[in-house]
Amino acid sequence: LRQGFPEVIFGQNKTAKQLIRIFSHLKEHHGTVIATRVSRPKAEKVLSALPELTYHPQARCLTYGQPQRPRKLGTIGILAAGTADLPVAEEAALCAEMMGNPVQKFYDVGVAGLHRLLHLLPQIRRCNVLICVAGMEGALPSVIGGLVSQPVIAVPTSVGYGSHWQGLAPLLTMLNSCAPGIGVVNIDNGYGAAALANAINRLGGVET
Amino acid sequence: LRQGFPEVIFGQNKTAKQLIRIFSHLKEHHGTVIATRVSRPKAEKVLSALPELTYHPQARCLTYGQPQRPRKLGTIGILAAGTADLPVAEEAALCAEMMGNPVQKFYDVGVAGLHRLLHLLPQIRRCNVLICVAGMEGALPSVIGGLVSQPVIAVPTSVGYGSHWQGLAPLLTMLNSCAPGIGVVNIDNGYGAAALANAINRLGGVET
Amino acid sequence: LRQGFPEVIFGQNKTAKQLIRIFSHLKEHHGTVIATRVSRPKAEKVLSALPELTYHPQARCLTYGQPQRPRKLGTIGILAAGTADLPVAEEAALCAEMMGNPVQKFYDVGVAGLHRLLHLLPQIRRCNVLICVAGMEGALPSVIGGLVSQPVIAVPTSVGYGSHWQGLAPLLTMLNSCAPGIGVVNIDNGYGAAALANAINRLGGVET
Amino acid sequence: LRQGFPEVIFGQNKTAKQLIRIFSHLKEHHGTVIATRVSRPKAEKVLSALPELTYHPQARCLTYGQPQRPRKLGTIGILAAGTADLPVAEEAALCAEMMGNPVQKFYDVGVAGLHRLLHLLPQIRRCNVLICVAGMEGALPSVIGGLVSQPVIAVPTSVGYGSHWQGLAPLLTMLNSCAPGIGVVNIDNGYGAAALANAINRLGGVET
Amino acid sequence: LRQGFPEVIFGQNKTAKQLIRIFSHLKEHHGTVIATRVSRPKAEKVLSALPELTYHPQARCLTYGQPQRPRKLGTIGILAAGTADLPVAEEAALCAEMMGNPVQKFYDVGVAGLHRLLHLLPQIRRCNVLICVAGMEGALPSVIGGLVSQPVIAVPTSVGYGSHWQGLAPLLTMLNSCAPGIGVVNIDNGYGAAALANAINRLGGVET
Amino acid sequence: LRQGFPEVIFGQNKTAKQLIRIFSHLKEHHGTVIATRVSRPKAEKVLSALPELTYHPQARCLTYGQPQRPRKLGTIGILAAGTADLPVAEEAALCAEMMGNPVQKFYDVGVAGLHRLLHLLPQIRRCNVLICVAGMEGALPSVIGGLVSQPVIAVPTSVGYGSHWQGLAPLLTMLNSCAPGIGVVNIDNGYGAAALANAINRLGGVET
Amino acid sequence: LRQGFPEVIFGQNKTAKQLIRIFSHLKEHHGTVIATRVSRPKAEKVLSALPELTYHPQARCLTYGQPQRPRKLGTIGILAAGTADLPVAEEAALCAEMMGNPVQKFYDVGVAGLHRLLHLLPQIRRCNVLICVAGMEGALPSVIGGLVSQPVIAVPTSVGYGSHWQGLAPLLTMLNSCAPGIGVVNIDNGYGAAALANAINRLGGVET
Amino acid sequence: LRQGFPEVIFGQNKTAKQLIRIFSHLKEHHGTVIATRVSRPKAEKVLSALPELTYHPQARCLTYGQPQRPRKLGTIGILAAGTADLPVAEEAALCAEMMGNPVQKFYDVGVAGLHRLLHLLPQIRRCNVLICVAGMEGALPSVIGGLVSQPVIAVPTSVGYGSHWQGLAPLLTMLNSCAPGIGVVNIDNGYGAAALANAINRLGGVET
Ligand SMILES: Nc1ncnc2c1ncn2[C@@H]1O[C@H](COP(=O)(O)O)[C@@H](O)[C@H]1O
Ligand SMILES: Nc1ncnc2c1ncn2[C@@H]1O[C@H](COP(=O)(O)O)[C@@H](O)[C@H]1O
Ligand SMILES: Nc1ncnc2c1ncn2[C@@H]1O[C@H](COP(=O)(O)O)[C@@H](O)[C@H]1O
Ligand SMILES: Nc1ncnc2c1ncn2[C@@H]1O[C@H](COP(=O)(O)O)[C@@H](O)[C@H]1O
Ligand SMILES: [Mg+2]
Ligand SMILES: [Mg+2]
Ligand SMILES: [Mg+2]
Ligand SMILES: [Mg+2]
Ligand SMILES: [Mg+2]
Ligand SMILES: [Mg+2]
Ligand SMILES: [Mg+2]
Ligand SMILES: [Mg+2]
Repeated sequence: LRQGFPEVIFGQNKTAKQLIRIFSHLKEHHGTVIATRVSRPKAEKVLSALPELTYHPQARCLTYGQPQRPRKLGTIGILAAGTADLPVAEEAALCAEMMGNPVQKFYDVGVAGLHRLLHLLPQIRRCNVLICVAGMEGALPSVIGGLVSQPVIAVPTSVGYGSHWQGLAPLLTMLNSCAPGIGVVNIDNGYGAAALANAINRLGGVET
Repeated sequence: LRQGFPEVIFGQNKTAKQLIRIFSHLKEHHGTVIATRVSRPKAEKVLSALPELTYHPQARCLTYGQPQRPRKLGTIGILAAGTADLPVAEEAALCAEMMGNPVQKFYDVGVAGLHRLLHLLPQIRRCNVLICVAGMEGALPSVIGGLVSQPVIAVPTSVGYGSHWQGLAPLLTMLNSCAPGIGVVNIDNGYGAAALANAINRLGGVET
Repeated sequence: LRQGFPEVIFGQNKTAKQLIRIFSHLKEHHGTVIATRVSRPKAEKVLSALPELTYHPQARCLTYGQPQRPRKLGTIGILAAGTADLPVAEEAALCAEMMGNPVQKFYDVGVAGLHRLLHLLPQIRRCNVLICVAGMEGALPSVIGGLVSQPVIAVPTSVGYGSHWQGLAPLLTMLNSCAPGIGVVNIDNGYGAAALANAINRLGGVET
Repeated sequence: LRQGFPEVIFGQNKTAKQLIRIFSHLKEHHGTVIATRVSRPKAEKVLSALPELTYHPQARCLTYGQPQRPRKLGTIGILAAGTADLPVAEEAALCAEMMGNPVQKFYDVGVAGLHRLLHLLPQIRRCNVLICVAGMEGALPSVIGGLVSQPVIAVPTSVGYGSHWQGLAPLLTMLNSCAPGIGVVNIDNGYGAAALANAINRLGGVET
Repeated sequence: LRQGFPEVIFGQNKTAKQLIRIFSHLKEHHGTVIATRVSRPKAEKVLSALPELTYHPQARCLTYGQPQRPRKLGTIGILAAGTADLPVAEEAALCAEMMGNPVQKFYDVGVAGLHRLLHLLPQIRRCNVLICVAGMEGALPSVIGGLVSQPVIAVPTSVGYGSHWQGLAPLLTMLNSCAPGIGVVNIDNGYGAAALANAINRLGGVET
Repeated sequence: LRQGFPEVIFGQNKTAKQLIRIFSHLKEHHGTVIATRVSRPKAEKVLSALPELTYHPQARCLTYGQPQRPRKLGTIGILAAGTADLPVAEEAALCAEMMGNPVQKFYDVGVAGLHRLLHLLPQIRRCNVLICVAGMEGALPSVIGGLVSQPVIAVPTSVGYGSHWQGLAPLLTMLNSCAPGIGVVNIDNGYGAAALANAINRLGGVET
Repeated sequence: LRQGFPEVIFGQNKTAKQLIRIFSHLKEHHGTVIATRVSRPKAEKVLSALPELTYHPQARCLTYGQPQRPRKLGTIGILAAGTADLPVAEEAALCAEMMGNPVQKFYDVGVAGLHRLLHLLPQIRRCNVLICVAGMEGALPSVIGGLVSQPVIAVPTSVGYGSHWQGLAPLLTMLNSCAPGIGVVNIDNGYGAAALANAINRLGGVET
Repeated sequence: LRQGFPEVIFGQNKTAKQLIRIFSHLKEHHGTVIATRVSRPKAEKVLSALPELTYHPQARCLTYGQPQRPRKLGTIGILAAGTADLPVAEEAALCAEMMGNPVQKFYDVGVAGLHRLLHLLPQIRRCNVLICVAGMEGALPSVIGGLVSQPVIAVPTSVGYGSHWQGLAPLLTMLNSCAPGIGVVNIDNGYGAAALANAINRLGGVET
């Protein structure tokens, strides 16, 4: 069904032992396998059994194999404002790459520093699809959505405190955005954003 | 910025008088104009002043002009399960058409009647992008997302009662879907789904 | 305690009869009286008894008397993006004026149309205090707060639908804003924003 | 009142010492005793005092005695999609067995892998009652409910993240299901599902 | 799939015209048809076209045909405490009867008047399955569940005010009940309770 | 203002050092001092500095001095159903005693074991005021309130899981109770219940 | 059980016809009957059949008979800040009086006008029990609770807007009050407050 | 843009290593730098690398450099009621001072001890702006707002338990306050309150 799409394991509720068993099994039939939400200690246990895997600490992912050989695809742009949002952004970036997409990162673009965002706009506009990762009030996709005509995937993060309620605040911001053409995924779901961006990107050809 | 995209007026909080003034103004500069969320009585007042408009009662939209001349685009599939979800599905369909996209409707596909859904699957899979409209528990996008590899846009509706809380139930279902590659828009936001589907569809060529 | 501050009646839960009685009483001791949240039919009943009052339909306020004679005060800037937010913005503007403040309105500044906002920035920066009124996702105060150094008062409105939950979405956006120096008032509380802006403005001298 | 029903202790808020005292007491009057929600370290302390008990690590239960001698009863089918939901499914299975019911487990049936579910359908349909355990979006009971005519007991689990809100998402999905004939129990309440399934199963005879 | 089960139309979001069309169609293939959530004015319009239907004002249902010929089934007991909960209780009772079940009503059993409840206990215990309908704090199923060993289906209603939040209060009460063997359906969902009770009852033989 | 009322320190957010300082100070002016919400390790540090205090582990309180010499007061009855609710019940009991009230405990009265509750009713009815402590669904005050005419103070506890949401479920149950004459305090607030019971009890004379 | 307590009917969900039937029945066995939550049009229909009843428009109650002949009881003080809270305060006052209690009203005491509250304090302190009715932020019981030693019953009202969420705001304020000795009833539940105050007051003798 | 405003780092999600790098960088271009939300262990690691910084344990802040040289500014008054709220109050105080404002602290003013608050009122009234920090029910800003005419910035804290929901209770209290002229910031956001107070204070001259 999903040819060209790596097998993806949700690592959060699995033990190192379970991960080793699943990886060993999948490696036999698939060229690329990813496990998301793997903490460093758990990763180290898995790596000592399966040293051919790679751990990506900021993205908190374990991977096996190389990205799929891409047919000529456009670029997926990944935008994030705050340092604390980077784990989610990196999860999205790594997954998108493993699915065979060229990825370009714009990690220092906050709504507060608008001029820097405007300065990068020409480069951002050359991407095929955009993933916007934002915690706190999550206003970035609204601003970006008003400036570009590409599809925008908005990922709220759980970064914040108080009335943020673990991501409720940016989730509602993104769902209620005035800018048309924004699709929202679950809080902290970098992987889901990558999967949607990949599905979209495979429809298009080279960059516009 | 958004060439090939009709002007879209949010009709909900505007009087007939305000709509007449805005339509008259926009008609001078744009070949196509849509107003969403227009009740029939309000539409009738607008039509008596601007008889060149068309009212679409189920979609609750007023339109001016013809769909944009499409360059060769793939089809947007619109799925809905229940009769009560049709206004939202029709808003999505009409907006997607006015933006120049071929649209195919699959309106009788409920999770309860799984065999009919499976029967239509070959046709559904020929679309470029899918919009899934669902109220009640909103499980349709999860099932569809597991069966197709295209991008899926999920639209929760406010159709339900009790612990549905005006759309909260299907909204959460869709955000938490196990099926990858689903982007969610606001409750009842048929227009937003169409705008995202259009942006995605313009990246792709003919149907896969 | 609050010299130079008009008497303000909350009109929402009062009958025309009660309003007439209260206005008649307050007029004897105060030069200026405002009633907020007065619907047109209720206002008309009050006006037939007290023709010396003035009704402001968009602000939904009844007023008696003239604004307080201002000592030289700076300007309160009032920003709003959408047409549907204007009743709240007008309530704020009228109350601020009745309290003796010069008011300047910037009513067409949405996050979606960023360039227009940037174009007006020099004028906006000449104000002493800013009131930002926004429904939908309520991102305007975050963007403004990053561009100016004045105090910003953010007013979420109940304008929206679905997961907006009658103003919850922009309320959370504003409370979680990354931009420092933003104070939030209750949903739709234009009057409260004006009262705070007035208290702030009285501390300052002429425009900076 | 509840003859043929083992004594069930809710272990979560009890110390090992309290559990030892209660087990010692109940063993004198009852042939079968279960304690649910017992962590492994706590279980080990209890076992060192009462070695005649058995610990079931995945179900997190301590049991004493053998299942009740069943009069001829139909089978309770227990369905679960994800690995992370297994502790709840196992709690349900173990409790149902200790109450004297034949139990059949279908643990690899996810809505995403619909064909496997359809493949197992004939076996699933031979059960008297079904318990559906599901986290994430919790769509499994809706799909099952549309395919079978037996009573379905839906158990939402706290497995998920972000807008899952510790089980709220699948709880609402299950309460709002379009498929008729579904009864819902509390989040993670495998024991409660077993108790209800047992009460239902005792009404019926052999499998249909 | 569901032989012996009447067709059930959800009448809430349908016009009289739509109901007439659906009834006309279903009557040709089914001996019994029910529409739930039909207001009196809507019912009257339908009846003028289809006088062979019957309207049940308290249950707010339209029915066609007679209950299914029951094979020998046990009785479904329906308990309700308050007058205001009767529409939901009657919807459950009527639907259960149309599905061919003997029904016994216990409508004056409140937790406040405990002695009356205890007095009726012998009769209640002779039923095969119990449906407990309760608004306000919804404590009835907890008390009943502790007194009987049959399956109990709990239906929270939207009857209450203030912190009741349209049924949230009794819904949570029922989901958190200490009494084992309780399955909960959506707020006000009398039909769903009947469907579940019917599925359960068909497993059993005559009354225990 | 509150003669005859011990000084009460909220221990939860205070260090042992802060507690020692506050106790040392208050002991000079007051015959009785209580600190609530003190964990055992913290208590031990305080006791090593102030060995004249007493620690009550189940109630999690530190006390200094003896209960106030009571003028002739009626009894405060304290009811609780579950073992896990005892810390809150004991906090209420200890505080009520330190305030000079005779206290009688009924700790094994659950709604599920109704006959035991009915058996104790004559003793319960001899109390002047009742404090009902209940977690899970919190139905106890509703049942008690229907059986007695004394004032009932309901204390929801955070004991539960899933849709209990840390006490929300029993809090709503108690606020929506059909039984008149029930006042509710915050979740787990045993001290607040004791303070209200004491204020009520001081109005009355000996037991009725 | 509750001698000296009038029969009280909850009028909200009953038709005039049902009220007439219930009143006619209860009048035969009881000297005093109250129905709460009766709108004026419904009351007028009832009065035309039962002219011996009295309608109290602000309290929205229908009463039959005279208050119970009080044994010598202390006074119940009823405090309210805003005009809009008076229906709830009046429901409490009327019910308390019908139960035989002397009632004193303090209706112009807001936290904003603290000096007036302080001025009335000596009179307030002479009451036996206090009922505090407050909407908006609901701070009145906290302030009163700190100034008096009597039991305080707090009644949040649904008067407010925006983030008030129909009474949630003052409900939480009251439940979290720092002032000890406050019991809270449901939003707008004037009757419940009166029933609790009456139960408390019957314990006491004359005013302190 | 913000001359005279120190650089402020949000320390919560940063490692000691990241903080050292950022401080080293900012020190080169700025005379004053603050990091908020720094725990003691993290601070100690930073200090061992950068001994020229100062750690403020109660405010949980690391600072570099001296407060900005103030032009003649009025005083910012900081009010707090409870000991547990002091970390938030101290964060506000330290930030306000580092921004160059004279600060006066009123830390023992609770709504329960009203007379002390009234006693300090003359001093409180001499401040230019007031920051009110309050957990529990958060009534302090309402009371203060009614007694002064200065701008009041309200900071709800997460101090409380049960239905406090980590600050929701005082947040709603403050947003719904009857007293005009109150701006609210996020739960526990002492820094944000200081930033707003500073912006306001820079408008004013010397104390009024
Ligand atoms: N049904 C709808 N839901 C959400 N947004 C809409 C809808 N219809 C139109 N819009 C958006 O609202 C904008 C126009 O708003 P307005 O200027 O208030 O008419 C358009 O640019 C659209 O992006
Ligand atoms: N996992 C569980 N979830 C909910 N209720 C349970 C669970 N395990 C046991 N119980 C119930 O808790 C009661 C015993 O509670 P306790 O007396 O506290 O041990 C039993 O009668 C069961 O009905
Ligand atoms: N009151 C009700 N509540 C929930 N579901 C209902 C109700 N009445 C009918 N239904 C369900 O709705 C389905 C019919 O929906 P529809 O095709 O929209 O009429 C039936 O198969 C029933 O399962
Ligand atoms: N305690 C705090 N709460 C909210 N925002 C803060 C806090 N401390 C610093 N900030 C803001 O966070 C920004 C720095 O974020 P960062 O670049 O992640 O260090 C600063 O410009 C401040 O506006
Ligand atoms: Mg765009
Ligand atoms: Mg898919
Ligand atoms: Mg700024
Ligand atoms: Mg079924
Ligand atoms: Mg039972
Ligand atoms: Mg009672
Ligand atoms: Mg007091
Ligand atoms: Mg003030």
